[in-house]
Amino acid sequence: MRIESVDFFYLSMPQVTTEADGSQDALLVRIAAGGLVGYGECEAAPLPSIAALVCPLSHGSCQPVQDSVLGQNINNPSDIQRISQLVAYQSMDLLQAAHTFSGIEMALWDLLGKSTDAPVWKLLGYQESFAKTPYFSVLFGDDPAITFERAKEARQKGFQAAKFGWGPIGLGSASEDREHFQAAREGLGNDGLLLVDTGQIFGEDVEKASQRIGAMEEANVLWFEEPFHAHALEEYGELVKRSGKIKLAGGEGAHHPSMAKHLIDFGKVGYVQIDCGRIGGIGPAKLVADHAVAKGVTYVNHTFTSHLALSASLQPYAGLKAHEICEYPGQPKSLALDITKSHLALDQNGQIKAPEAPGLGMEINLEALNSYLVDVSIEVNGQNLYKTPQFEI
Amino acid sequence: MRIESVDFFYLSMPQVTTEADGSQDALLVRIAAGGLVGYGECEAAPLPSIAALVCPLSHGSCQPVQDSVLGQNINNPSDIQRISQLVAYQSMDLLQAAHTFSGIEMALWDLLGKSTDAPVWKLLGYQESFAKTPYFSVLFGDDPAITFERAKEARQKGFQAAKFGWGPIGLGSASEDREHFQAAREGLGNDGLLLVDTGQIFGEDVEKASQRIGAMEEANVLWFEEPFHAHALEEYGELVKRSGKIKLAGGEGAHHPSMAKHLIDFGKVGYVQIDCGRIGGIGPAKLVADHAVAKGVTYVNHTFTSHLALSASLQPYAGLKAHEICEYPGQPKSLALDITKSHLALDQNGQIKAPEAPGLGMEINLEALNSYLVDVSIEVNGQNLYKTPQFEI
Repeated sequence: MRIESVDFFYLSMPQVTTEADGSQDALLVRIAAGGLVGYGECEAAPLPSIAALVCPLSHGSCQPVQDSVLGQNINNPSDIQRISQLVAYQSMDLLQAAHTFSGIEMALWDLLGKSTDAPVWKLLGYQESFAKTPYFSVLFGDDPAITFERAKEARQKGFQAAKFGWGPIGLGSASEDREHFQAAREGLGNDGLLLVDTGQIFGEDVEKASQRIGAMEEANVLWFEEPFHAHALEEYGELVKRSGKIKLAGGEGAHHPSMAKHLIDFGKVGYVQIDCGRIGGIGPAKLVADHAVAKGVTYVNHTFTSHLALSASLQPYAGLKAHEICEYPGQPKSLALDITKSHLALDQNGQIKAPEAPGLGMEINLEALNSYLVDVSIEVNGQNLYKTPQFEI
Repeated sequence: MRIESVDFFYLSMPQVTTEADGSQDALLVRIAAGGLVGYGECEAAPLPSIAALVCPLSHGSCQPVQDSVLGQNINNPSDIQRISQLVAYQSMDLLQAAHTFSGIEMALWDLLGKSTDAPVWKLLGYQESFAKTPYFSVLFGDDPAITFERAKEARQKGFQAAKFGWGPIGLGSASEDREHFQAAREGLGNDGLLLVDTGQIFGEDVEKASQRIGAMEEANVLWFEEPFHAHALEEYGELVKRSGKIKLAGGEGAHHPSMAKHLIDFGKVGYVQIDCGRIGGIGPAKLVADHAVAKGVTYVNHTFTSHLALSASLQPYAGLKAHEICEYPGQPKSLALDITKSHLALDQNGQIKAPEAPGLGMEINLEALNSYLVDVSIEVNGQNLYKTPQFEI
């Protein structure tokens, strides 16, 4: 099969705010080859990612992403790896390329799965897709009472685990944060898994981050996620020395598999969290999963958006039975839910798994998406380089 | 002073090819505040960088770069640091942001220097701008005879050092590469400094890279630059164990100071090469210079474009007398030379230094640039987000 087209669809809620909710817009990718289509999703700023797809050539190592994709043959997994390497080399100096290519790579796996009638996890070499225990992923409330309500909601919806992120944590005192951790634990009950995500708020400040450890221990928090920025390997390593039984988690910012490996090797995280929409797609994420297994670290997906992204993010570790926790978007915007007709609903045990259906196993809801479509036009020296394609239903 | 405007100018040669010559286009940045203007330059793909400046908000951690810059106060160096941190936090999930902001950060230093009548290196805390020995930076020829000619040209132009990069190296056999190293050494003479840049061609293949070490030792090569991709810390560290007296060099791909620090700490490079147009600007580059001094590693600029970028890239280590080598664009396209009226010409000792004049000390050649200006228009939902500004002469 020859890659005939790469279409990017910028989708958005009518209103987008500065809340830490990544489901307010989306960048859907459609690839056509051999009479089939595959879909993927970049977890990335849509406009710069579109620009990286179609921009004029700057020089040999700064080529638009589409120049390494269009016209390429895709018949087996090694073709996807070959195209990934071509993009990495020819777009070496185009920083946004990794985010842009992530959705393309996902779509290539989806397409390859459809053409071979196999789910992606089987193409990755797994024999079985094991059930995962999803955690309800939400933001901390503006005050502890809201955090408490959200924790109760998680249990009411059948979740055994919940992750609270961002919000006021780290902006005030450690004792104010303690109240939120306590409220989350109360709402969740003593038998629920409680996870905390501080969204890089401590920058490189190990001391300030470590002041939260005591309250996390009191609330029996399983992991402390993203205390620092994505490159702060030494700071992660230092905090581990002070974090007692609280394990560190991180990796969502990785846009190259080596970045995630370094967070394991040098940052000493206990959980490595990969967003397939940023790291370059499913193949690079699988490399991180292999490395996590080798180093005794637990792999977890990072997904805050659609169920297409959720299916993609489950594939790299679908066959790893012991790596059981998965992120599950708890309160996504309607856009994220409307991207697919089917959803990965919780089974009677409160678990989900990567679909058995070919490719990513998700049907795109084209009818629903037209109303979210953002109209973009990019012209360079009088030539149109990008115009929002239409969904043909 | 309050930042009133941030203007991006996409400049390009009429023809851009896939050769590894980053001087074929440019992204010039102009900042206005307090009745003054400052200039900087992103070493980045222009269109995605413009998109990252002006794109619609995606969520709180994926904001357009301009939202963290426009309207901010700038009165002293700590303001620049504060704005940098704001961009890093508010554009955490916008990968291209580091490249976009790099030119802005440079322009802020230029502006601050002009307002305080001080060269940037003085604002960075240095007392003196020491002379650097520039190396003539060119590409390997398609065959060794061309490499030989370019080496001779370097000496004829008064350079004591020359770096050869990219071209056929690593694409053929180690013995073919040896002929190029020998040709470069012959053309340069025995007393010239010879540097080799392989432009990431060996990916993660330590064995293949190490096969070039013998020929480099024969040709008395000082450093072996970028054997691997920018994140290949372990591979750098492995190659160092086999590279004998040949030191490794790298770092131009760093888009965060921590990346460069890791290349020193874990990759064990002997020379760390920073492009101020990618790492986030002059401030982050200075952090790397400080770290290099602490770790006994030599700091070098990475500059393949204009003399505005060259001046900016000298500032972070202008006051480090022992860090004497600097990259000097050897055969840039006319665009790169036309960006400034003045140029950092070699003195009678064949050396250059960061200017004594305020800011970056370079005068922009507005008259010359209009002919290179690329006309860009970006519209989102009927609203124009970017239109190429005009130079007012």
